[in-house]
Amino acid sequence: MAVRKIDIQQAVMAADMSYAKKIRDKLAEKGILMINLIGSPGSGKTTLLENTLGKDGLRSAVIEGDVATDRDAVRIDALGIPSIQINTEGGCHLEANWVDMTLEKLPLEDLDVIYIENVGNLVCPAEFDVGEDHKVAISSVPEGPDKPLKYPLLFTEASAVVLTKTDLSPYVSFDDDLFWSDVAKLNPKASTLRISCYRKEGLDEWSSLVRSWLEEKRRG
Amino acid sequence: MAVRKIDIQQAVMAADMSYAKKIRDKLAEKGILMINLIGSPGSGKTTLLENTLGKDGLRSAVIEGDVATDRDAVRIDALGIPSIQINTEGGCHLEANWVDMTLEKLPLEDLDVIYIENVGNLVCPAEFDVGEDHKVAISSVPEGPDKPLKYPLLFTEASAVVLTKTDLSPYVSFDDDLFWSDVAKLNPKASTLRISCYRKEGLDEWSSLVRSWLEEKRRG
Repeated sequence: MAVRKIDIQQAVMAADMSYAKKIRDKLAEKGILMINLIGSPGSGKTTLLENTLGKDGLRSAVIEGDVATDRDAVRIDALGIPSIQINTEGGCHLEANWVDMTLEKLPLEDLDVIYIENVGNLVCPAEFDVGEDHKVAISSVPEGPDKPLKYPLLFTEASAVVLTKTDLSPYVSFDDDLFWSDVAKLNPKASTLRISCYRKEGLDEWSSLVRSWLEEKRRG
Repeated sequence: MAVRKIDIQQAVMAADMSYAKKIRDKLAEKGILMINLIGSPGSGKTTLLENTLGKDGLRSAVIEGDVATDRDAVRIDALGIPSIQINTEGGCHLEANWVDMTLEKLPLEDLDVIYIENVGNLVCPAEFDVGEDHKVAISSVPEGPDKPLKYPLLFTEASAVVLTKTDLSPYVSFDDDLFWSDVAKLNPKASTLRISCYRKEGLDEWSSLVRSWLEEKRRG
């Protein structure tokens, strides 16, 4: 049973890879950067987008992945930013074929960056290539500092690790040194950012990173 | 492809059901209660166990599920409570056959309650019956109040919903009424608890609930 499960899983992943390549080719042609945000439920993915989109001089759109509800897409839509909700109806991650279908509904001629806000989950979304240029791991202070080693694939795959809700540090016991040293062990090349949307700290650094990724992509 | 994937998934679930029944029969014979704790990464599952085990007059053991590391089992072991770590090596949830194998390593003759601390994840663990008497949904204040409707299966299946880290309420915007009204919509019969391990609030109510479940089970 286990072996058959793995075979199917590999076939699904292979199909996924071909959709991911199709997406990557399409976005390369149009010079659009795609960033895949992955973090726990409630780690602050939507809030980070709310605090940066439309303020960073870039033309953005968001693909929202959730098991159910369109609450996050409604929040992004309220900013006047194009957003499309994918409901996975129980599924624990987004897959490239859904992202591919969604791209057709976005104004690709008028975009610099597409953000994917994946289903809140540190495990499954890290396994699936959805055609992004960069995965970003979002981890929040109240979750505690042990997440990198407990969920190593995401933190190893991410181009950047963003620690959010740093304003809550005085109220929880969070070992900052442990968190960042574990990140460095897994992924010494990752960009690292500390962000408090409440205090508006670290937001310019985030926007600069996105801009540098976009410039790098357009230089080819 | 999708259809084959579903077939396999159903077969895996059917196999899982038979292990779950085996576990349930074994634990019924011995009068042991099994509780499956499910919550986001960093929602406070281990901390709740640390604050109640050995203090509630019950003989407990813990099966720890994590993608990687044995950090949580080490924390429980430090209390003198029997604990066994299952590393899923990338898997996003525990399955009943692993729990069944683990039971052989626990001192079943000397136990009242076995806690399963599932992989930190609001999606996949809710789908799998691991032989428990009760699923418990753990959600923490800093995650925000929108989790029940965004991850409805867990909150619908849970016998109890525990809101943790209530001491952080003054520092985050958490709509308590929204959270509990969404829980009530999904699952009006669930027991509901508000807990702050930092302030030692709600812990007696939790222990009383566990004791009432144990008595109910032993009455048959």
